[in-house]
Amino acid sequence: MVNQRIAEILRNSQPDESVTIKGWVRTKRELKEFTFIEVNDGSFLANLQVVLNPDLPDYDTILKQINTGASVEVSGVIVPSLGKGQRIELKASSVIVYGDADAATYPLQKKRHSFEFLRTIGHLRSRTNTIGAVFRVRNACASAIHQFFQERGFLWIHSPIITASDCEGAGELFTVTSLNLNNIPKTKAGEVDFSQDFFGRKAYLTVSGQLQAEVMAMAFRDVYTFGPTFRAENSNTSRHLAEFWMVEPEMAFCDLNGDMDLAEAFLKYIFKYVLDKCPEDMEFFNERIDNSVLATAENIINNEFQRITYTEAISLLEKAERQFEYPVNWGLDLQSEHERYLAEELFKKPVIVTNYPVGIKAFYMRLNDEEKTVAAMDVLAPKIGEIIGGSQREERLDVLQKRMESQGINPEDLSWYLDLRRYGTVPHAGFGLGFERLVQFMTGMGNIRDVIPFPRTPLSADF
Amino acid sequence: MVNQRIAEILRNSQPDESVTIKGWVRTKRELKEFTFIEVNDGSFLANLQVVLNPDLPDYDTILKQINTGASVEVSGVIVPSLGKGQRIELKASSVIVYGDADAATYPLQKKRHSFEFLRTIGHLRSRTNTIGAVFRVRNACASAIHQFFQERGFLWIHSPIITASDCEGAGELFTVTSLNLNNIPKTKAGEVDFSQDFFGRKAYLTVSGQLQAEVMAMAFRDVYTFGPTFRAENSNTSRHLAEFWMVEPEMAFCDLNGDMDLAEAFLKYIFKYVLDKCPEDMEFFNERIDNSVLATAENIINNEFQRITYTEAISLLEKAERQFEYPVNWGLDLQSEHERYLAEELFKKPVIVTNYPVGIKAFYMRLNDEEKTVAAMDVLAPKIGEIIGGSQREERLDVLQKRMESQGINPEDLSWYLDLRRYGTVPHAGFGLGFERLVQFMTGMGNIRDVIPFPRTPLSADF
Repeated sequence: MVNQRIAEILRNSQPDESVTIKGWVRTKRELKEFTFIEVNDGSFLANLQVVLNPDLPDYDTILKQINTGASVEVSGVIVPSLGKGQRIELKASSVIVYGDADAATYPLQKKRHSFEFLRTIGHLRSRTNTIGAVFRVRNACASAIHQFFQERGFLWIHSPIITASDCEGAGELFTVTSLNLNNIPKTKAGEVDFSQDFFGRKAYLTVSGQLQAEVMAMAFRDVYTFGPTFRAENSNTSRHLAEFWMVEPEMAFCDLNGDMDLAEAFLKYIFKYVLDKCPEDMEFFNERIDNSVLATAENIINNEFQRITYTEAISLLEKAERQFEYPVNWGLDLQSEHERYLAEELFKKPVIVTNYPVGIKAFYMRLNDEEKTVAAMDVLAPKIGEIIGGSQREERLDVLQKRMESQGINPEDLSWYLDLRRYGTVPHAGFGLGFERLVQFMTGMGNIRDVIPFPRTPLSADF
Repeated sequence: MVNQRIAEILRNSQPDESVTIKGWVRTKRELKEFTFIEVNDGSFLANLQVVLNPDLPDYDTILKQINTGASVEVSGVIVPSLGKGQRIELKASSVIVYGDADAATYPLQKKRHSFEFLRTIGHLRSRTNTIGAVFRVRNACASAIHQFFQERGFLWIHSPIITASDCEGAGELFTVTSLNLNNIPKTKAGEVDFSQDFFGRKAYLTVSGQLQAEVMAMAFRDVYTFGPTFRAENSNTSRHLAEFWMVEPEMAFCDLNGDMDLAEAFLKYIFKYVLDKCPEDMEFFNERIDNSVLATAENIINNEFQRITYTEAISLLEKAERQFEYPVNWGLDLQSEHERYLAEELFKKPVIVTNYPVGIKAFYMRLNDEEKTVAAMDVLAPKIGEIIGGSQREERLDVLQKRMESQGINPEDLSWYLDLRRYGTVPHAGFGLGFERLVQFMTGMGNIRDVIPFPRTPLSADF
């Protein structure tokens, strides 16, 4: 007799096997001759059906306790199931009820609940089919990411969460302070006296670990970050979070081509891994949430990504026989509608657009020889648009300094970053992937708040 | 001809093999007949010795450029090494110098540097032997942690970094705000008007993901967090960081015994994994940093952990034939000297102490039947003291409410946490491990600031 997860039992167990399961009751169905309960332990989308016979000790007491939501331990024997929809079921020989759940107040009674409602009970929503499947897929994605990089000899490095650097210019920053906001110390000039704060200066939550990843790549060649990042942007949309996880590989001795190769191999690997590990959950999303997610996954896995320059992309968009809401013009950034047109309609597969105009990209991206574009790349996927953004980094000290100055960044403030170009500089490249966007993309979930356990958004930091 | 990491070459390559390496010059030694350089790419502790013959194209130019710190790509053939200390070396047929490093200003010239000095050049220190080895071991530890839990079907869950809950009472909190500190909005009563802040209320950086891990365990059975946590404690010691990573597994249907079993299996697994993956680095730490680290690792791997109750521990300490600085008395917490006595001197192996007095432990730990102790456990290791702290959680609603009230916590503030006991409550347990403490312990490094890439401590948030 073993204590198993329900996933293993539903996948592998054979009639006559003795098992003990532990989980939560999803439904109870009382018939004249016996009672069916469905038990779920979070390891699998489907429930295990359990048959309770009236000859069970304390049958009547147990029956009253095992409402939806109750926690139970059931021992018994696997038998073939006569009902449709399942191969096997568990004939109970003993039942322990650990905790009940009052049917009058337990919010997760058997019916459809809107995702909006489920967000208000974030501490219980993982006990539903859809959110349960989301977090199993999320875990598989995260695990795939580590496995992909570790197999290739990349080191996972922990870039700092608290940073004193505000010069990356990637949106608005959260302040981190230990000062008492009711009684902020001031300097003689009347400004906040940050010398009395914990770090002796202004500190923020990080928006990216890239600059620190570059530091580590200049010692270990291939590294990646996988950690939380933050934006204090007041964006109340289905695609924005104030706190989200980001993956940022960085490779020394690597150019834009190597960067694109890595990004393509990376996405293929993760999608394949998740299809292998969570086939039932992915089928479920395809059936109930978005009937294109399996086709999209196969598309990513099986197609060579199209690679075009930004200039080519503009020309293709200008030739497109359709009206765009936003203008198409060399020098302007691509909008989501443009990105989706290229990936979804024109090439019908992922597209990597390279060499964007210098004016619309960050200071650290490598200036191309014609000095009008930088060695950036965005991976555009069908259905979602940009999923990865990366670049070869500017490794030439003088060019980097000029680019910083032209963007109003004082090189003094990032002298440590410039040191990487002073001492043993090398061509290097990397990219960033928003982890929740990936999970959203993979599952087809409409709102990003439903793919992170405890979403942080404007006016909301519950649980 | 392949482009390989130096670790693979030093471990596996045979004479006559053609290779291309990329890395940074550690030393240069000019002889009459030829020049030796040692190249390191961060993949391995040892350098690869490269022989440059004067018949190499541009020999004189190259020689001037390849000072310590310069970045190079070298192609050539592996030959047996005549020098001592290495099996093979690389005879160069071509050299590309990507970037030089001015010997007059590059701080990492060949000599011993203090760790204090290296902290001031945190963006370059990973290019040294010791810090390089630390971060390879750190990566192996992190990778082992994920592999351990994933193999056992645990889900990695991301507990929130920003939290509005301040009732865990685990030390001082950092405030997170998007308010302008120079112009804080006030209510009519003159208090800070947090309704105007990003989250509409006070928000903090998390000190632990445990409560949220419990939420997820009540849906998925077995989960773990591995993420950053924070303390705004003004502790300037060699063992404190304001920002550090924590690992927190949580298991439903698990008691204190299961918790101890997991903790023991977990530590054994990680130490074994690191010895397997980083044998050279661990040898190095044993030789240069702390000559007990290998013995300690073997001790953890090969011994069954001793399990004793707190009450037994007090009795053993009272019988000890030595003076302790801090008093030993039932009801007082164990100090580091007591913990080390038990693990290092008395049992000479890891010790798990259980069932601590209720008065010195957190509200969520399960009250034992005699109501004087709680089902807590601390794992004490030789040389370091407490490395893991955990407990069975209080799963009984009424007992938990009373415990909260007696500790001045308003149950209303954690009503979602209490819901886990209202609906399908189960016995459950978990523990916490400070990741940097583990790496410090494993490597023998004296200061915790040297085992995290970018340490955050009072008055210091560089890079």
